[in-house]
Amino acid sequence: MKVFTDYLSFNTSKRQEFIRITDEVAAIVKASGIVEGIVLVSAMHITSGVYVNDWEDGLIHDFQVWLEKLAPAGLDYRHHQTGEDNADAHLKRTIMGHQVMLPITRGKLDLGPWEQLFYAEFDGQRKKRVVVKALGVDG
Amino acid sequence: MKVFTDYLSFNTSKRQEFIRITDEVAAIVKASGIVEGIVLVSAMHITSGVYVNDWEDGLIHDFQVWLEKLAPAGLDYRHHQTGEDNADAHLKRTIMGHQVMLPITRGKLDLGPWEQLFYAEFDGQRKKRVVVKALGVDG
Amino acid sequence: MKVFTDYLSFNTSKRQEFIRITDEVAAIVKASGIVEGIVLVSAMHITSGVYVNDWEDGLIHDFQVWLEKLAPAGLDYRHHQTGEDNADAHLKRTIMGHQVMLPITRGKLDLGPWEQLFYAEFDGQRKKRVVVKALGVDG
Repeated sequence: MKVFTDYLSFNTSKRQEFIRITDEVAAIVKASGIVEGIVLVSAMHITSGVYVNDWEDGLIHDFQVWLEKLAPAGLDYRHHQTGEDNADAHLKRTIMGHQVMLPITRGKLDLGPWEQLFYAEFDGQRKKRVVVKALGVDG
Repeated sequence: MKVFTDYLSFNTSKRQEFIRITDEVAAIVKASGIVEGIVLVSAMHITSGVYVNDWEDGLIHDFQVWLEKLAPAGLDYRHHQTGEDNADAHLKRTIMGHQVMLPITRGKLDLGPWEQLFYAEFDGQRKKRVVVKALGVDG
Repeated sequence: MKVFTDYLSFNTSKRQEFIRITDEVAAIVKASGIVEGIVLVSAMHITSGVYVNDWEDGLIHDFQVWLEKLAPAGLDYRHHQTGEDNADAHLKRTIMGHQVMLPITRGKLDLGPWEQLFYAEFDGQRKKRVVVKALGVDG
């Protein structure tokens, strides 16, 4: 059994930003040498998420409008009594999910035709990390 | 360490349909020969999900009514400018989740008394797949 | 490869209660002897969840208010025709998620600075369990 770990770093210019990371994770899987297994991709911060969905700008816009409706910024959240202003970011990332497990089959990410992996930042403009941990057997 | 992979296929007659798949995944785990480990069950399409909850028709109805309220069909989604009409299906599957990891203990799915596994289709009437990948040690 | 399994038990005094379990899971990981791998932490009941977020009472209050808005108790749910009264608990746990995978690196949970693990009970006052299953390589 082999376990391989790497990290991705982000520092977005906007507070909220969705970034495709399929290729970065595929490169880590290739570097791992694992041919059959799984890879965990998980946000290490509690105001960002990781999710699988469509690589289509219109849908990404729809996601962001929808999240603003379900978990609005600017409400009188109790969390803000600590001096924070990002309670909505904690809620939004909860809707999107903060981690995924991707299957590795014959040395590659075993994804369906439209599956793309995204990092979803809801409180950016500072350094954030994602852990990528692959487990499996090598060739 | 052993890794075992299989796939389930679906082609629902209705656009939205929830299908119990606990037995199908249990059979794959049995075929794998793995006695201690985990199994990833993950939708390979971005308008369907996989979730664990109650096998009770009333609750399944409640889930569907609730999802329609949180992520309605028929709104003026930007994704629809591409010719698609299924933006709500992408949102609904995000609420339900698109994958689960189930523990395998003593050769069987290690589930609580009421845990049942479901495939949730939100844009069916065409072929869809779910990947089932088990990892662990055999007997 | 090593696989190590344990269970946590809960019997909350209130119907709804969020309980931090980071230390309990860290202790299980230490007991497992696994130095590189992952650990699955998954609710075995369908009216409770497991999630990663902030250890801050104000935010926990915000989560609970928010869930009550998105998935209210006391509606005329069809599930209640079976005699149950907890349909909202099934929905709330779906929003929060019912399981997480945590990375194990150099023998410890590989968490970001603010990541804390919680058990979220939505229909307590009775015994519930969480399965903790660690996979990986030992030292």
